[in-house]
Amino acid sequence: MIITDIIAKKRNKLELSTDEINFFIKGVTDHSIKDYQISAMLMAICINSLNKRETYDLTMAMAKSGSMLDLSEIPSIKVDKHSTGGVADAVTLALAPLTASLGLPIVKMSGKGLGHTGGTIDKLNSIPNFNTEIKIEKAIEQVKNINIVLMEQTQDLVPADKILYNLRDVTATVESIPLIASSIMSKKLASGADAIVLDVKCGSGAFIKDFDNAVKLSEIMIDIGKKAGKRTVAIITDMNQPLGNSIGNSIEVVEAIEILKGNITGKLKDIILVLGSYMLLLGNKTDNLDKAKLMLEENIINKKGLEKFRELIDAQGGNSNIIDDYSLLPCCKYKAEFISEYDGYITSIDTSKIGAACVETGAGRHKKDDKIDYGSGIILKKRIGDKIQKNEIIAEVFASSKEKIENALSVLSTAFSIGNEKIIPSNIILGILDNKI
Amino acid sequence: MIITDIIAKKRNKLELSTDEINFFIKGVTDHSIKDYQISAMLMAICINSLNKRETYDLTMAMAKSGSMLDLSEIPSIKVDKHSTGGVADAVTLALAPLTASLGLPIVKMSGKGLGHTGGTIDKLNSIPNFNTEIKIEKAIEQVKNINIVLMEQTQDLVPADKILYNLRDVTATVESIPLIASSIMSKKLASGADAIVLDVKCGSGAFIKDFDNAVKLSEIMIDIGKKAGKRTVAIITDMNQPLGNSIGNSIEVVEAIEILKGNITGKLKDIILVLGSYMLLLGNKTDNLDKAKLMLEENIINKKGLEKFRELIDAQGGNSNIIDDYSLLPCCKYKAEFISEYDGYITSIDTSKIGAACVETGAGRHKKDDKIDYGSGIILKKRIGDKIQKNEIIAEVFASSKEKIENALSVLSTAFSIGNEKIIPSNIILGILDNKI
Repeated sequence: MIITDIIAKKRNKLELSTDEINFFIKGVTDHSIKDYQISAMLMAICINSLNKRETYDLTMAMAKSGSMLDLSEIPSIKVDKHSTGGVADAVTLALAPLTASLGLPIVKMSGKGLGHTGGTIDKLNSIPNFNTEIKIEKAIEQVKNINIVLMEQTQDLVPADKILYNLRDVTATVESIPLIASSIMSKKLASGADAIVLDVKCGSGAFIKDFDNAVKLSEIMIDIGKKAGKRTVAIITDMNQPLGNSIGNSIEVVEAIEILKGNITGKLKDIILVLGSYMLLLGNKTDNLDKAKLMLEENIINKKGLEKFRELIDAQGGNSNIIDDYSLLPCCKYKAEFISEYDGYITSIDTSKIGAACVETGAGRHKKDDKIDYGSGIILKKRIGDKIQKNEIIAEVFASSKEKIENALSVLSTAFSIGNEKIIPSNIILGILDNKI
Repeated sequence: MIITDIIAKKRNKLELSTDEINFFIKGVTDHSIKDYQISAMLMAICINSLNKRETYDLTMAMAKSGSMLDLSEIPSIKVDKHSTGGVADAVTLALAPLTASLGLPIVKMSGKGLGHTGGTIDKLNSIPNFNTEIKIEKAIEQVKNINIVLMEQTQDLVPADKILYNLRDVTATVESIPLIASSIMSKKLASGADAIVLDVKCGSGAFIKDFDNAVKLSEIMIDIGKKAGKRTVAIITDMNQPLGNSIGNSIEVVEAIEILKGNITGKLKDIILVLGSYMLLLGNKTDNLDKAKLMLEENIINKKGLEKFRELIDAQGGNSNIIDDYSLLPCCKYKAEFISEYDGYITSIDTSKIGAACVETGAGRHKKDDKIDYGSGIILKKRIGDKIQKNEIIAEVFASSKEKIENALSVLSTAFSIGNEKIIPSNIILGILDNKI
């Protein structure tokens, strides 16, 4: 096989065979196919797309490009959860210990944040001494002991995805539904999950802006799950405003702890309950979604979720006293208030700009190697539909320098629309797709 | 400007501005845009195309990427000629001296062959000691003295094209009409031509297989010429069989000399007369195409074209005795005959396979750095429409080893179709487009 012939086929909108896709991914992984050839192929896929069969083949070829984790030592069904990336999305921090406290074994690998969306690993690393670089053998031991581990992806997990993702980022080929689907699902399949719950974000703060594309992405991902023999549920959720009110790292840890303490209600908690219910259902911990929700609520009230989080922090070397004393977490020297110039109602929020403003505070990364300021970030005081008066606070901004504060305020200044009409914000759950296998 | 934004625009089928195209070509030329980004852009252009305005802007940006030749020292109109590449296409070897002998100054830069099409420079280099690497100052001096120079492209001519072409070759992005048009026209415009005659090959031996695409390519190229203020004529010619009967290097030199001696008629001579007539017209040597044709015929009969070729060879250090004694040209040790297995008529020829068989004899290149065997090649004995009997010779094959002979014969064995019906071959001139400025 010759790579230019395969690229030409996709350029001409023809279907690639399984062998051709395997040849491509093998060449990507062993570097026999050059970067410039890979990016030509990625652009051809971006424009001419892949059908479901090709997308499945691509996903499997990628999943097998590195080592496939074997979690069979851990008894009972392993359910993995993945979010396509949002703003103020501290879901995993609360959801993982909460479901683990109900007997579901949680082996969760996460990534660092890049651009306007945050990363679970960065949030965990804001807890003093919390270690996220864990070898797989040690991770399995930890799950056997306390039923939960939260860790960075191992180095040899889906190496093809790392190569493709780095190229997509610099060649305008990120926005392709088959490429997004295969990137996500290859990692889930290689991580050894038995079942998968996907949080597909949709709206101004997500990669996918409109509902139709969110449905397409969800359909393709649950189809991949079905072909791979894994029950997969995709929950399409609203990302037209930040999910929680805290956007940063240590401040998101606080918000997650407040959820586990039962002190917070709202959209962040709503999503945790829906995702958690499906995880318990797919993990055979109950046969009924309503019962599952009650189980989760109960383990918030009885603090078992909170105590599981404490166990997790202890097991991974962190200082679990932060749970009782938030002042032990990193914080910032400078604080400013972003205030309204008008009377009215918040009518819309450009959520990716909130994420971008958060990057300006130092809590996120422009480039892959940027260092993070764990204590900085933004706390939202108003949401879509809220009444606002002139000079009232819309958000608080935290950063380690006045310059960062100014830069963040400047980005925030174009993020909110204020009008005369009270808008009713969208439901948080927009749709649920289930391959029911 | 950010290159990923520009790539994303073309990915989304949007029109690029002049500034964006200039930014792209500047980045290509100074290597600030990476190969993998260039190839993503090339694929986006390949699939989503460029309109005429974008193609003109791309052409001008490329033309200006290196030095633009100034031929103003040479009096009268400089007419350049270009062929999109064919098989058995010795046109330039005869056409250039013939038109020069009628007072048209000829500064012709050519390329080496790659793949199934030959290159004028290789053919000239088969003449013992003929030098094609000439500095531009010396070239201008030679034209002032004898009215003709045939030379390799200077190193600093359109560097952007070299970079783009090398990438297109390995990323399946060669077959794009705007990219082909801009590659050809940028070189013609940078070479200082006042007017341009294009031979657009169309058929089984050409890059462009069908007439509609040949028209599209021609339309775009004469449009670029018009916008640049250069009269441009595109002549679409048939390449469904080799143009002449000799395919190689020294044997094509012989065929060109035979044309200039008046010993050969046929399609090769027909094309030379048509292209030559337009060159004389555009060069203001006559106001009438019929008169132009008579002038060319006369300079074949009176041998002035042949003597101009002798002057050219002498001026560039070659041995001009080859004109009178073909045995001074390189030849080959082994010869074989490709014979017919059937009675019937030649109904079609896969001309790119004839070119490929010629590469197998050693007369062409698989890869850019392959060495050439100047004496090898193929001489066609039958053409489309010719009657053939079983065991009659279709072609003769020349090579320096038995293995090369066998490889060439093997490729030839699938190149000819023989049937019962006598086919009337297509006209050699399929269409003429003229921007008439």
